[in-house]
Amino acid sequence: MKVYLIGAGPGNPDLLTLRGYRIAQSADIVLCDRLIPDEMCRSFRGISITTIDDVVQFVTEASKKGKTIAWLKNGDPLVFGGSIEICSELFKLGVSCEVVPGVSSSTGVASGAGIPLTSPDTPLFTVITAISKDGNLVDFNAIPRKGTLVIVMGGKVISKLKGELLKARSEDEPVAVISKGSMEEEKMKIGKLRDLDLIAMGLDPPITIVVGETIRYANIYSVHIEP
Amino acid sequence: MKVYLIGAGPGNPDLLTLRGYRIAQSADIVLCDRLIPDEMCRSFRGISITTIDDVVQFVTEASKKGKTIAWLKNGDPLVFGGSIEICSELFKLGVSCEVVPGVSSSTGVASGAGIPLTSPDTPLFTVITAISKDGNLVDFNAIPRKGTLVIVMGGKVISKLKGELLKARSEDEPVAVISKGSMEEEKMKIGKLRDLDLIAMGLDPPITIVVGETIRYANIYSVHIEP
Repeated sequence: MKVYLIGAGPGNPDLLTLRGYRIAQSADIVLCDRLIPDEMCRSFRGISITTIDDVVQFVTEASKKGKTIAWLKNGDPLVFGGSIEICSELFKLGVSCEVVPGVSSSTGVASGAGIPLTSPDTPLFTVITAISKDGNLVDFNAIPRKGTLVIVMGGKVISKLKGELLKARSEDEPVAVISKGSMEEEKMKIGKLRDLDLIAMGLDPPITIVVGETIRYANIYSVHIEP
Repeated sequence: MKVYLIGAGPGNPDLLTLRGYRIAQSADIVLCDRLIPDEMCRSFRGISITTIDDVVQFVTEASKKGKTIAWLKNGDPLVFGGSIEICSELFKLGVSCEVVPGVSSSTGVASGAGIPLTSPDTPLFTVITAISKDGNLVDFNAIPRKGTLVIVMGGKVISKLKGELLKARSEDEPVAVISKGSMEEEKMKIGKLRDLDLIAMGLDPPITIVVGETIRYANIYSVHIEP
């Protein structure tokens, strides 16, 4: 009896790993997080789940029958995955979680769009959520002054987010806003940080925001940029 | 004529994505970076390459014949990948690079070892190289005071690195040192930051270092920890 937490990548089904594919194919039960595309979930005869209670209930029942569960998670399971709370519950029931790393949206959305997260001049990057667990917007004190910055889950609070970002970073810094990263419907717009709210206007979630000088390299890769 | 930069993941061949696998299988020529495991490179009849000149030469010759090149890169191609310099050269020759995102070592090594990079109390993480382009050690001013910290390529300078880390972070912070992440020979040791050099002693490269409170969650996942 085991639960495999499988990183399914940023959205496109073919960014699943070979290991993740193999385990999801052979598992007794496949559970799919809310952000897993329907197409991917159906291909494994998966069951969409939404709450911690759902998972714990499934696993408790399955454990009595010695079943193996593959649980498809968006991106990488242990990067903004919400897995900690659920695996803690399962641990108390004597069930362990094994992690299958996946392409994290925090790195894969930018790289798929041709934006390097690092360069010889930028040897670091930071990933941050726009909204923390208490529902508050990210504190600008937590925003590093240097390096590339990736902001996930920022689509709904973009104007306020821009205000906090401008306290920590220059208004002239390049910014890229990527909608539906890795999917066929992916769109990317590029501009300056001072125009972040205008750039993001009309783009559908999920939204990934990248701030930093490495964005200027995007044109040397095959990407689609809307000016 | 196109060059596909394929993220091959942190080392284990089954962490390659389905897309990366498909492209590498059908390409005319497969090139393998130095860190790509021999087993994976051979399975695609790949050619090991080491220098920028090697790649540019291969691509220039292949372009005359309309060949497709798949270039396997460790981790994700655009995270500490050294791809920028080479794709800039190719861009001048009229050849574009298309990126296939992969499981970055900066996220996948920790998550494969059961360490979440974020938690409800830790909504950010930073990834940094131990040594920057000028050969100098990372400056402690660039090390953020908050959040999980992942340090790549730190194995050879561990004592000096510890000195810089202690200027920015508490000596009591949990630290994990992971050797050969994702591979069968993977080893992880956990301790306090003040003992980083002792913890890392005897561990083989490549080494990934994680600093932060989320390390305490590792025991709720299936992992092998040497005390």
